[in-house]
Amino acid sequence: MKVVADLCIVPMGVGPSVSSYVREIKAILEASELDAEMHANGTNIEGELADICRLIELCEARLAELGVQRVFFTMAFSSRRDKEQSMADKLAAVS
Amino acid sequence: MKVVADLCIVPMGVGPSVSSYVREIKAILEASELDAEMHANGTNIEGELADICRLIELCEARLAELGVQRVFFTMAFSSRRDKEQSMADKLAAVS
Amino acid sequence: MKVVADLCIVPMGVGPSVSSYVREIKAILEASELDAEMHANGTNIEGELADICRLIELCEARLAELGVQRVFFTMAFSSRRDKEQSMADKLAAVS
Amino acid sequence: MKVVADLCIVPMGVGPSVSSYVREIKAILEASELDAEMHANGTNIEGELADICRLIELCEARLAELGVQRVFFTMAFSSRRDKEQSMADKLAAVS
Repeated sequence: MKVVADLCIVPMGVGPSVSSYVREIKAILEASELDAEMHANGTNIEGELADICRLIELCEARLAELGVQRVFFTMAFSSRRDKEQSMADKLAAVS
Repeated sequence: MKVVADLCIVPMGVGPSVSSYVREIKAILEASELDAEMHANGTNIEGELADICRLIELCEARLAELGVQRVFFTMAFSSRRDKEQSMADKLAAVS
Repeated sequence: MKVVADLCIVPMGVGPSVSSYVREIKAILEASELDAEMHANGTNIEGELADICRLIELCEARLAELGVQRVFFTMAFSSRRDKEQSMADKLAAVS
Repeated sequence: MKVVADLCIVPMGVGPSVSSYVREIKAILEASELDAEMHANGTNIEGELADICRLIELCEARLAELGVQRVFFTMAFSSRRDKEQSMADKLAAVS
């Protein structure tokens, strides 16, 4: 199932500053083959839901290597069958 | 990666009443082997993230059979390595 | 604007166990005049959006008293004009 | 309470294409005094939570004028007391 997702990963039990952890997450997301764009509150990612979930597991594993024992995630995503629509298409449609 | 998730599935392009679609989703979630509890705004589900994603795809496919061409999903979920914690444990810890 | 909301409050920079903080949040939400039901991943709350936001600010202020300097919140909520629908109505409609 | 929020507004009962409605929401958000940046899955907004909620109510009212009887919203937001951090600061901290 292809989706356009908005993913936010919140390391718990560390911080309050978490930017060093977010930089590690950003490196993993951007090194992936999926189209990922970080914004001020998360990362927009386009691809198969199963691939995005594998990426999430890589991020959680990396955070665990850095000592993060608990992670909170939010993901809003949408699927569409009436037509193909990329992240760029979605933005163009409302410009 | 085992998670405790809060999943909300919003059929788009149909409604405003969507209860007939939510009943179909409820049947799929409750027929699964995962521990799932529906509440007023979604369903709490416990299990491997990959299994939950497969279940989400089953729900989207069923909605498509019913004519729903676009679906919006939100999922908040957390993973924990310092100890095992089920949905029941989480509620007990704050009772 | 009357809404039915699903609110999750994640204290950052403390934990990984946050149950002591969640108990404080639960006390504030349940002491309010709004109809609030805690579930394994958050709390369902029914009421005017502005009242729910004031309640959120009370929770954040209490967490600050407990030393929490940063808080992450997620809130999914819906409004409806075609008919009145309480949390109980929503559950009954899909039973 | 000042927050940095990621807001997504989903008109229900219309569509599946909702871009005409999202354009109306975009106009309201960008005409406001709050710093708002639309991205592929929603809009990042910075400001007092109460002001953001008033803006949400304006959007819902406009959608109602356009015939939308039901709206689903998701909002992830964070507050911080250890230091001031704008949306731009958040992005700069992970660049």
